[in-house]
Amino acid sequence: MPKIVDPQQRRAEIADALFAVLREGGVSKITLAGVAERAGLAIGSVRHFLGTHEEMMVFAFDTISERFRDRVLSRARALRADLDGGGLGPEARLGATADLLCEFLPMDGARRDEAVVWVEFEVAARTDPRLAETSTRAAARTAHLIGTILESIRARGDLGLDLALEAARLSALLDGLTLRSVLHPDLLGPDVMRRVVVEHLEALRGMRPARARDDRDSADGSSVRGEHSASAT
Amino acid sequence: MPKIVDPQQRRAEIADALFAVLREGGVSKITLAGVAERAGLAIGSVRHFLGTHEEMMVFAFDTISERFRDRVLSRARALRADLDGGGLGPEARLGATADLLCEFLPMDGARRDEAVVWVEFEVAARTDPRLAETSTRAAARTAHLIGTILESIRARGDLGLDLALEAARLSALLDGLTLRSVLHPDLLGPDVMRRVVVEHLEALRGMRPARARDDRDSADGSSVRGEHSASAT
Repeated sequence: MPKIVDPQQRRAEIADALFAVLREGGVSKITLAGVAERAGLAIGSVRHFLGTHEEMMVFAFDTISERFRDRVLSRARALRADLDGGGLGPEARLGATADLLCEFLPMDGARRDEAVVWVEFEVAARTDPRLAETSTRAAARTAHLIGTILESIRARGDLGLDLALEAARLSALLDGLTLRSVLHPDLLGPDVMRRVVVEHLEALRGMRPARARDDRDSADGSSVRGEHSASAT
Repeated sequence: MPKIVDPQQRRAEIADALFAVLREGGVSKITLAGVAERAGLAIGSVRHFLGTHEEMMVFAFDTISERFRDRVLSRARALRADLDGGGLGPEARLGATADLLCEFLPMDGARRDEAVVWVEFEVAARTDPRLAETSTRAAARTAHLIGTILESIRARGDLGLDLALEAARLSALLDGLTLRSVLHPDLLGPDVMRRVVVEHLEALRGMRPARARDDRDSADGSSVRGEHSASAT
């Protein structure tokens, strides 16, 4: 009897081989032949499961995005259960929120491998319209989750945070930590990253209400909130 | 008489041609032939001025790093003159510091072009040891300048900021804003970037002294300051 191959599993194996090639040499080193060799498959077999080089790239980027999303959402659900339980004090709540945000960051070897792949694909997406679709979808998802986290901080602390502005700031902070950790791992280990996140959350908690800032913004004749909402649509 | 060619100017022209190719297609699209064509030169001429593909890449990355440094340092000197003059009130000082930090960010077309090139080279440096040297040198310079800015905020406001931790946070924020603006320019324009920076500075100014946090860190049996200093040497 011929060996039965689960197509989904085979595609995942090809994606993993692609990630390994990508981590070693960057996007320019990814070829169908190289990925096939790394996966221990014939190049025809890779073509059978994933088609062209371009289809393989899009599938691989989708795969890493889904893995990231599944991990973060699973952590977010656990956190929500903890918070809804109501048994956590302020410090424990801040710690739990920091843990969730750290799930976005390359805190261990597996997540560092994932982050390296993510940065490479994100940068490649700048000049590749098919990768850009995945990039935009992932950015929208992350923005939604960051918004939910900040809304929850505001609700608990009764602070008047400017959510759109703080979302832009927190998202940039997480992306910057990821980029710096990928490029300069010796300068930014998991310990410092977590402390930066905790520091940021503590500063948010200690911030004065946004109303004072809104008044000043109105005096400027403009509003970040309005700009940001407009750009998010 | 033969035409006299200024070698320095010619190399700068070749670097500009390389930047244009890089912005359009990413690192993998850079070839000696492609750059020569874009610069309107024979490939032999490019080789004459910049040698191999690798030497051309290193020169181009150095060039963009120097331009960035010159621009930021010139702004920093102007700011220092303003601050030393003593005529600025607290709000004007905060605004001037924000303007300096915004010099790190892609606030207009020219700086966006530069930021795109920077991100591409930084990511390429992950797997290219010769580019990594420039990347590490630039990161050290930026860290020094960010440290100086934070020290000045602490001195003016008499705050007990944990400088190493805040430097890691502010550096990551600037890198994250740059990365997000390069990859998703529609979501993050210059206006929102400047507001994020101002918000960050205002939050720093409003923060409680670091002493309370240091006590907590000691209770943890560890110190970010120690880690960071160790990694920076």
